[in-house]
Amino acid sequence: MNQAGLGSVAGLELPQPYLLFLGDTTEPGYAKTAFGLRDWARERCVGEYVLPGGAVSTGLPSLNAAEAKARGARSMVIGVANAGGAIPPTWRPALEEAIRTGLHLVSGMHNRLRDIPGLVALAADYNVRLIEVRDPPSDPPIGTGRKRTGKRLLTVGTDCALGKKYTALTVARELARRGLDVRFRATGQTGIMIAGCGTPMDAVVADFAAGAAELLSPDAHPDHWDVIEGQGSLFHPAYAGVALSLLHGSQPDVVVVCHEPGRTVMLGHPGYALPTVDEAIALNLQLGRRTNPAIRCAGVSLNTGALGTDEAERAIAAESDRLGIPVADPLRGGPALDRMVDGILGGA
Amino acid sequence: MNQAGLGSVAGLELPQPYLLFLGDTTEPGYAKTAFGLRDWARERCVGEYVLPGGAVSTGLPSLNAAEAKARGARSMVIGVANAGGAIPPTWRPALEEAIRTGLHLVSGMHNRLRDIPGLVALAADYNVRLIEVRDPPSDPPIGTGRKRTGKRLLTVGTDCALGKKYTALTVARELARRGLDVRFRATGQTGIMIAGCGTPMDAVVADFAAGAAELLSPDAHPDHWDVIEGQGSLFHPAYAGVALSLLHGSQPDVVVVCHEPGRTVMLGHPGYALPTVDEAIALNLQLGRRTNPAIRCAGVSLNTGALGTDEAERAIAAESDRLGIPVADPLRGGPALDRMVDGILGGA
Repeated sequence: MNQAGLGSVAGLELPQPYLLFLGDTTEPGYAKTAFGLRDWARERCVGEYVLPGGAVSTGLPSLNAAEAKARGARSMVIGVANAGGAIPPTWRPALEEAIRTGLHLVSGMHNRLRDIPGLVALAADYNVRLIEVRDPPSDPPIGTGRKRTGKRLLTVGTDCALGKKYTALTVARELARRGLDVRFRATGQTGIMIAGCGTPMDAVVADFAAGAAELLSPDAHPDHWDVIEGQGSLFHPAYAGVALSLLHGSQPDVVVVCHEPGRTVMLGHPGYALPTVDEAIALNLQLGRRTNPAIRCAGVSLNTGALGTDEAERAIAAESDRLGIPVADPLRGGPALDRMVDGILGGA
Repeated sequence: MNQAGLGSVAGLELPQPYLLFLGDTTEPGYAKTAFGLRDWARERCVGEYVLPGGAVSTGLPSLNAAEAKARGARSMVIGVANAGGAIPPTWRPALEEAIRTGLHLVSGMHNRLRDIPGLVALAADYNVRLIEVRDPPSDPPIGTGRKRTGKRLLTVGTDCALGKKYTALTVARELARRGLDVRFRATGQTGIMIAGCGTPMDAVVADFAAGAAELLSPDAHPDHWDVIEGQGSLFHPAYAGVALSLLHGSQPDVVVVCHEPGRTVMLGHPGYALPTVDEAIALNLQLGRRTNPAIRCAGVSLNTGALGTDEAERAIAAESDRLGIPVADPLRGGPALDRMVDGILGGA
């Protein structure tokens, strides 16, 4: 989607292109951020930096900080998570090397770069920034509820972690392919790194959450689309408030409801049954009408990663028949995705 | 309600009794916090401190810091707000005098005590604390959705600023009068000052808001009541997320819906029609069922402050007839309030 995620918005602005730092990780599951950047911002990633002992690769060129800088890199992004979110001491020499080379550091870790002894002073010496993607935006406004110009799509879900980010990225890419003026609006750490800007909704103080969401998708040309990465779920016992703030502040014209077939309970909350797709559609429309009475559901995004191709196609077709609206797995693409994009544009 | 608001909970703990600082305010509307403390925590307020030029009084004994200290005061509370939330330079000598006398300072102002030049060092010298009631709690947990023991009531509303705090305080006092084991659980600045503890829900980071609400009303004896001060409104374009986090995290057995007759649009959001009481009851029960399937609405609290006595009584009776549930103005008390408390206990 190229430039679809870039632009001037309130919140973070990350210096691109990136060098992806993978540390000494041996577990691919910890490198989701790096893989996401490779898949969705590849033209803005000059290469990867793996420490000795590391066994995970994105397949991008292996570069040290100086080589990356020579190829135009402006930041080194920590593309791996660790259990607990800590930054291990073994990474420090590489972080210091990047700073001395003049690369900004970008981190979405729970533990902050600024808490690593000596790093703040070193960064000041070399005039580079330590950018913590989990830091909340400063001074977001109180929500106003004022209707803004332009069109907005928000991905919502029956639960967390079932494809809201990649659904939004795919929809933004498909709208761009059709020649539309579109931006992906990021609300989480990985999405922000992909887009190069955005607002970490989970880090905003509760009273300002809807206001921060309003700021994320400002007034735009009437034909412009903002495709907003959803967070949480209205049905989640911990995160429903974030989801509602984002729904109200985004005032979407269109929602796409994301779901994973076979998931029966909320992630990490086995006492909570997953809502049905129908319930998720109904509640998002009911509550979303408060700030946009014209809200509609244009489709359902099914995460069929656990299914074989035939099984996935059957599940998608059956759900579309049952609901009477387009259903697709964005990562599988194909005619189903085309129909979902038609549906997004159709009633707009 | 005496001790109904006191107790060990996560969040702030304020040293009581208080000396109420009124500054040089001439506008009673700015002294709502001081009046709230006088009305609801009078036995924990030794007196008031008014600067020369001030023209607002709570009627409590006029004391300087040393006199208040001699009468047992442990903190001086800034009981006035200013337009803009600033702390004017004319107040500084009195704040410094209180510190030198050994009183902690408690403030709910937007501008922080710690930003007044020299005050942090002075407080350290005299071993007193600068307690900022707007500071968010440190490290609240993620919500779990686990059902806790004990009984809970949450005041909710059709809008902000129509009586959720005073309804909760009144209900807690009435339950205590009937001999029940009850605590008022504060979620806003004035409520926290009255209770001496609580959690400023508006200052919690969005991802932790439901978790902070869970922590506020921990497991308790099966017959114990926590009466929780509501915040915002599920219908408010800026604050619905906070209201939903508090509803989910509080998992109330009972809600009381607060409303102001005659208010037709949301406070500060004239483009947003106020929901009806019926809509507010329905949506709070619908969404509250997610964490407590047994949730019920036991009554409606009408803020009839703008009406004469006869008019208020007619409005209360008419609304009770129409809805078929108890309706009362807690500040007017009387048999209507008794019926509402009966309703709270009746189905529990």
